Amino acid sequence: MSQKLSVGLIGAGRIGRVHAETVLTRLPNAEIVAVADVNEEAARRCAADFAIPQATADYREILNNPQVQAVLICSATDTHARIITEAAQAGKQIFCEKPIDHNLAAIDQALAAVAAAGVTLQVGFNRRFDPNFARVRALVQSGAVGNPELLHIISRDPEPPSPEYAAVSGGIFLDMTIHDFDMARFLIGADVESVYAAGSVLVDPRIGAAGDLDTAMITLKFAGGALGVIDNSRRAAYGYDQRVEVFGSNGAARAENNFPNNVTLADSTGVRQDLPYHFFMDRYIDAYVNELRAFVRCLHEQTPPPVSGEDGRQAILIGLAARKSIAENRPVHLNEITG
Amino acid sequence: MSQKLSVGLIGAGRIGRVHAETVLTRLPNAEIVAVADVNEEAARRCAADFAIPQATADYREILNNPQVQAVLICSATDTHARIITEAAQAGKQIFCEKPIDHNLAAIDQALAAVAAAGVTLQVGFNRRFDPNFARVRALVQSGAVGNPELLHIISRDPEPPSPEYAAVSGGIFLDMTIHDFDMARFLIGADVESVYAAGSVLVDPRIGAAGDLDTAMITLKFAGGALGVIDNSRRAAYGYDQRVEVFGSNGAARAENNFPNNVTLADSTGVRQDLPYHFFMDRYIDAYVNELRAFVRCLHEQTPPPVSGEDGRQAILIGLAARKSIAENRPVHLNEITG
Amino acid sequence: MSQKLSVGLIGAGRIGRVHAETVLTRLPNAEIVAVADVNEEAARRCAADFAIPQATADYREILNNPQVQAVLICSATDTHARIITEAAQAGKQIFCEKPIDHNLAAIDQALAAVAAAGVTLQVGFNRRFDPNFARVRALVQSGAVGNPELLHIISRDPEPPSPEYAAVSGGIFLDMTIHDFDMARFLIGADVESVYAAGSVLVDPRIGAAGDLDTAMITLKFAGGALGVIDNSRRAAYGYDQRVEVFGSNGAARAENNFPNNVTLADSTGVRQDLPYHFFMDRYIDAYVNELRAFVRCLHEQTPPPVSGEDGRQAILIGLAARKSIAENRPVHLNEITG
Amino acid sequence: MSQKLSVGLIGAGRIGRVHAETVLTRLPNAEIVAVADVNEEAARRCAADFAIPQATADYREILNNPQVQAVLICSATDTHARIITEAAQAGKQIFCEKPIDHNLAAIDQALAAVAAAGVTLQVGFNRRFDPNFARVRALVQSGAVGNPELLHIISRDPEPPSPEYAAVSGGIFLDMTIHDFDMARFLIGADVESVYAAGSVLVDPRIGAAGDLDTAMITLKFAGGALGVIDNSRRAAYGYDQRVEVFGSNGAARAENNFPNNVTLADSTGVRQDLPYHFFMDRYIDAYVNELRAFVRCLHEQTPPPVSGEDGRQAILIGLAARKSIAENRPVHLNEITG
Repeated sequence: MSQKLSVGLIGAGRIGRVHAETVLTRLPNAEIVAVADVNEEAARRCAADFAIPQATADYREILNNPQVQAVLICSATDTHARIITEAAQAGKQIFCEKPIDHNLAAIDQALAAVAAAGVTLQVGFNRRFDPNFARVRALVQSGAVGNPELLHIISRDPEPPSPEYAAVSGGIFLDMTIHDFDMARFLIGADVESVYAAGSVLVDPRIGAAGDLDTAMITLKFAGGALGVIDNSRRAAYGYDQRVEVFGSNGAARAENNFPNNVTLADSTGVRQDLPYHFFMDRYIDAYVNELRAFVRCLHEQTPPPVSGEDGRQAILIGLAARKSIAENRPVHLNEITG
Repeated sequence: MSQKLSVGLIGAGRIGRVHAETVLTRLPNAEIVAVADVNEEAARRCAADFAIPQATADYREILNNPQVQAVLICSATDTHARIITEAAQAGKQIFCEKPIDHNLAAIDQALAAVAAAGVTLQVGFNRRFDPNFARVRALVQSGAVGNPELLHIISRDPEPPSPEYAAVSGGIFLDMTIHDFDMARFLIGADVESVYAAGSVLVDPRIGAAGDLDTAMITLKFAGGALGVIDNSRRAAYGYDQRVEVFGSNGAARAENNFPNNVTLADSTGVRQDLPYHFFMDRYIDAYVNELRAFVRCLHEQTPPPVSGEDGRQAILIGLAARKSIAENRPVHLNEITG
Repeated sequence: MSQKLSVGLIGAGRIGRVHAETVLTRLPNAEIVAVADVNEEAARRCAADFAIPQATADYREILNNPQVQAVLICSATDTHARIITEAAQAGKQIFCEKPIDHNLAAIDQALAAVAAAGVTLQVGFNRRFDPNFARVRALVQSGAVGNPELLHIISRDPEPPSPEYAAVSGGIFLDMTIHDFDMARFLIGADVESVYAAGSVLVDPRIGAAGDLDTAMITLKFAGGALGVIDNSRRAAYGYDQRVEVFGSNGAARAENNFPNNVTLADSTGVRQDLPYHFFMDRYIDAYVNELRAFVRCLHEQTPPPVSGEDGRQAILIGLAARKSIAENRPVHLNEITG
Repeated sequence: MSQKLSVGLIGAGRIGRVHAETVLTRLPNAEIVAVADVNEEAARRCAADFAIPQATADYREILNNPQVQAVLICSATDTHARIITEAAQAGKQIFCEKPIDHNLAAIDQALAAVAAAGVTLQVGFNRRFDPNFARVRALVQSGAVGNPELLHIISRDPEPPSPEYAAVSGGIFLDMTIHDFDMARFLIGADVESVYAAGSVLVDPRIGAAGDLDTAMITLKFAGGALGVIDNSRRAAYGYDQRVEVFGSNGAARAENNFPNNVTLADSTGVRQDLPYHFFMDRYIDAYVNELRAFVRCLHEQTPPPVSGEDGRQAILIGLAARKSIAENRPVHLNEITG
C-alpha cells in the first residue's frame, strides 16, 4: 500500500464531515481525494472545508476512480448494504457507518460480497474506541476482572428524538440500543444467546403512538452463562449518560461519564459539579478519531479490522430478537431470528 | 404507653444479640426485660452480656409476661409465622426479622392474626434505614428525580454460602434477593407487577448441584411502567457490593458503597483506595440501629410501622415469581402467584 | 492489672460525657467508678445517665480513692496541669484532654511529675485515631509514600466562636491549630523546626478586635527538610472541613472529608451531593471511641501511650512559635521558645 | 482586520510547533504565513509539516513582512524582550511565551515599547485557559465562593529537570512556579503583596549543588488579606499533579487532576484507577488551543488581551521576591523588588 491512503468519502452529512476533518487534521497517512453526496452542494461545501480536491453527486464516480483505495460510507442507512456490495466489487477497502442495514438478508448479501472480494470491512461502532470503554475491555482481556459474569450498560440520551424520526428509525433497539448490543459483545468477549426486552413509553406519548418505546431494560444471556443488562432512556435530564460495568470472578471494572471539567463547588447548599457532556459528539470525539486511525492502520499493516462485518450483523441480530421479545413478551433465543 | 418500652427478645443468635446491644446502648426509651432461645445457654449468655434480667428456653414465657409490651422475633425463619400469630394473640407489638415465611399461606395467616389483634407488626427490612438508601428514597419522594422510570440495584455478597446452606435457604431469591425486592418497592414507591429472572451458576458448581443459583439478573416491571433490574452475585472479590440508582424524569439519584476510610494513595502504579466494607454488619450497622429506633418511635407515637406486614408479604411474592420465572424461563405476573 | 480497669472521670461537661458513654457502651474491659465536677449537679446527672456509682464535686475524692486505677481529666484547661501533677503523685494512670496547658513551664512541671511517678500519660489528640488520618499515617509508616516531603492540612471550622470565647481561648493557634500541629508531627513522623504564620481577620471583625485571627496559613519546616502548610478558617460555609495530604518520594496519600451519606443527585442543574459532617462530634465520633480504647489497651498491655506528654508539649511549642511569628512577621525557630 | 489573521511564527521548537498545529487545524480565522528559527532546518521542517509557505533563519524577515499582522514569539527566553520591542516597533500584534524575561528592567523596556506602539501583547500563561482552572475562576468571579480568603495551588512535575537545566533555568521560582504565581493572581483576582518562600533539596542533590531548590512551599499574602500557598515539587511519582482550591466566605471551588480515562477497577486488593496525565502537553492540550483562540479573537474583536504584559511582569516580580525570601529567610514585600 502506498505511503498515504487514498480515501473516498461517500456522504457529506454530519458524520461524514467529522470523518473528513479527522482525516485532514489527525491522520497524516491518509487523505480524502473525493467526496460524494446526493446533495451535490453538500459535497462541494465539504470539499471546500476540508481540502478535498473533488466533489460529486454520484458515489459511483468514487468507486470507479482507480486512485481511491478505500471508502468511508456515511450515506443514509438504507444505502449502506448496496454501496458496500458495489464498493467490494470495485475492490475498495470499506469503512461503513453503523448499522449495515436493518434487514438481515441485505446484510448477509453485503457481507458475502465483501468476502468474495477479499476486501476489508470495518463497521463504525465508534464507542469501542472510547478511552473509557477501551480501558474496560483491556482490563477484561488482561484477566483483571477474571471470568466476566455480570454486565451493566447504562445508555441514555439527553433528549428524545422527534416522533417523526422515531417512526422511521427502525425503533429504539435498531436505532439506539444497537450501539449497546455491540458494546455488550465487545466488553464480555462472547456472543449473546438470548434476549429479554422490557419497554415502556414514559418520555413522550407520541413516540408510543408512532409504535416505538422510549424507555427499555434488556436482559442478555451470553454464551458461557454471563448475564447482562442494558438500560436505555430517550431522555436524561442531566445530559448524555454512558456508563458500563463488567463484574467477574476477580473483581469489577467501571467506566463513568466524562465531564467538561472536574471542578467541585461546595457551598452551604451542598457539593456540586457541572453536568457530564450533553452532546454525543463531545462525549465521543476521541472515539471517532480513534476508529478512523484504527481503520487506516489495519489497512497499512494488513491486519483484520477491529470491528468486523460479522460484528455489525450480530448487533442487528440482537436488536431483532429484542423487538420480537417485546412483541411476544418472552425471552427470545437468537437462533429464532432469520433473515 | 409507659415511658420505657418493655421488650422481650425471642432468639439470641447473631441478629438477636445485635438488637440487644442496640436497645441497651442506643435506645434510652426501651429496655429488654427477658430473652428466650431454644438454646437456653445462648439465652443466658445474651442476658449476661446485655443486662437482661430474665432468660428462658421457652418464648411462651415472654408472651405470657404481662410486663412485656413488644417482642423482637429473631428466631429461625420457620418459626416466624407461628410466633407472630401467638404474639399477636397475646396482644404484643411485634418486630419480626425478615422473611416472615417462605410460604404465602403461612404469611397470610400470620398477617390475619396481626390484623385481628390490632397490634403493630414491623418486618426487619433493615436496609430501608441505611443512610444512603434512605437518602435516595427521600430524594425520590421529594420529587427531585421526578417520575421514577428506571431502577438499578446491585447487591453482591463478598463470599458464597456453603452448599449445605444454599440447599436449605429457600434459594437465592428468597434468601438473598428478598432484601432487594423490598428495596425495589421502597425506592420506586410502587408495587411490582411482573418479574423476569435470569440466573447462572458461575461461582460454585456445588450450589448448582444443590438446585440453586449463585448469579442472577432480575427484571422488574412496576405498576405505572417503571422498569428495574436487580443483579446478584454470591461472590464479589472486592467485598460487599450494595449500590442503587433511581432514574426519573428530572434526574437520577445514586448511592455508592461505604468505605472504612476515604483515603487515596497515588503512587507510580496508579491511584488506590481501600476496599468497601466486607461484612454486612459493618455495612449496615447504622441501619440496624435505625430500624429498632423507628420501631420504638412508632409505638411511642402510635404511628404506623415504617415496614408493614404487607411489605414483608410482597417481597416473598416477588421472590416466588422469580423462582417460577427461572423454572419456566418466561416473565411471570405476580397475580399468577397464590398461596 | 485487674480484668476491668477502674476509671475516675474528672469533668462532666460535653467531652466528659462523651467519654463516659464510650466506656459504658464500647469498652467492656473498663468501667467508670466515680465522676467529679465542680458543678455537683452535672456530676450527678452524668452518674445517673452512664451508670456511674459515685458522684462528687471534689476531684480529690477520686484521686484518694484506692480503687481508681486511671483518671480521665476533662476539666477546664487551666486545671489540667495541676490535676495531672496530683494524679501522678497519687499513682493514677492519666488520660488528659488537650491542651495540657498554654504555659510551657506549667507543662514541664506536670510532665516532670508524671515522669517521677512513673505513670502513663496520654494526651487527648483524638484526631490521630480518626480512621482516615490513621490510615494516612499507616501508609506513611509503611513506606508507601516514600520519604515524606510536603504536607497539607486543611482544617476549617463550620462556624466562628463568639468574640468572647476568642478573647479567652488563647488565640486560634493554641485553641484550634493545636490539633493540626499535633497532626503535622503525627503524619510526618518528625519534629517541627520552624514556623512561619500568616494570618488575617476575614470572618468576624470582632475576633480581630479581641486580638485574635480567624484565618491563617502556617508554614512548617520539619527536621529533615520536609515542608508543610496548615490552613485554618473559623468559618466554612459548607461545614466542617478536615483534610490532609502527605506527599513523598514514592507518591501521595490524601484523606477526604466524611459525609453523612454517599448519594449523588444528577438533575438538569448539575451533580450534587450532601455536605460533609458539620459537627465535630459527628466527624470524629469514631476517633473519640478509638482513643479511649487505645488508652485502656496500653494500660492492660503495659505499652507506651500512643500520644505522649511530650507530644502534648510539642504542639504547644509550635503554637507559641506561631504566635511569635505573627507578632514579628518572620519565621520563628522552635528553639527560640522557652517557658 | 482582514478576515483571516496573518501570523508569523518566531521559534520552531516544541511549543512553536504546537502553536503551528493549532493554527492550522483549529483556527479557521488565522493562518501562519512565515516561520523563523535560528536553526533554519527546524524552520523548514515546521513549514513543511504545517503548510507554512515561507521559512527563514532570520525573524526580522517576518517583522519586515508587511503582510504579517501578528507574531507568536516562541524563541529562547533571553530573546523575548528584544523581539517584543522590535515587533512592537514594527507595528505587529504580539503573543509571547512566558516568561517575558527574568530581568525586571528588560521587561519594563519591552512593555514600554508595546505601550508606545499601541499594539496588543498577550503573554503565554496557557493554564488560565485550562477548562478546570477557568471554571474555578468563573465560579470566583460569579460570587459563588464569596470573598476569596484562602488559596491552595499544588503544582508538581512528574520528573526533575537535569541539573544542567536547573543551573540555567533561573531557578525553580522563575522557571516553574512562575506559572503558579500567575495562576494565584488569576484565581484570586487581586495582586500579591508579600511572599514567604520555604524550600528544600529533597529530590536530587545535584539540583542543590547547582544552587537551586527542588521542593518548595510559598506563602502569599494578597491585597485585601487573602492568603495563599503554592506547593511545588520537581518529582511526583504518580505523574503531573496540577490542582487548585479557592476558599471564600460562601464556599470553596476545587479543581482536580485530569485522567486519561475514568475507569476504576475493584479487585481483592483495593479499588484502583489509572494515573493522571504525565506529560504537560497532554494535561494542557486544550489550554494551548484555547489561549491562541483567545488571542486571535481579541485581535478580531479589538478587545484587550486576556493575559496582559503587566500580568507577565507581576509573575516575575513575585518570583524575584520568592528568591529573595529564600536567600534571607524572611517574608518579602513586593515593593522591595526593583529592577
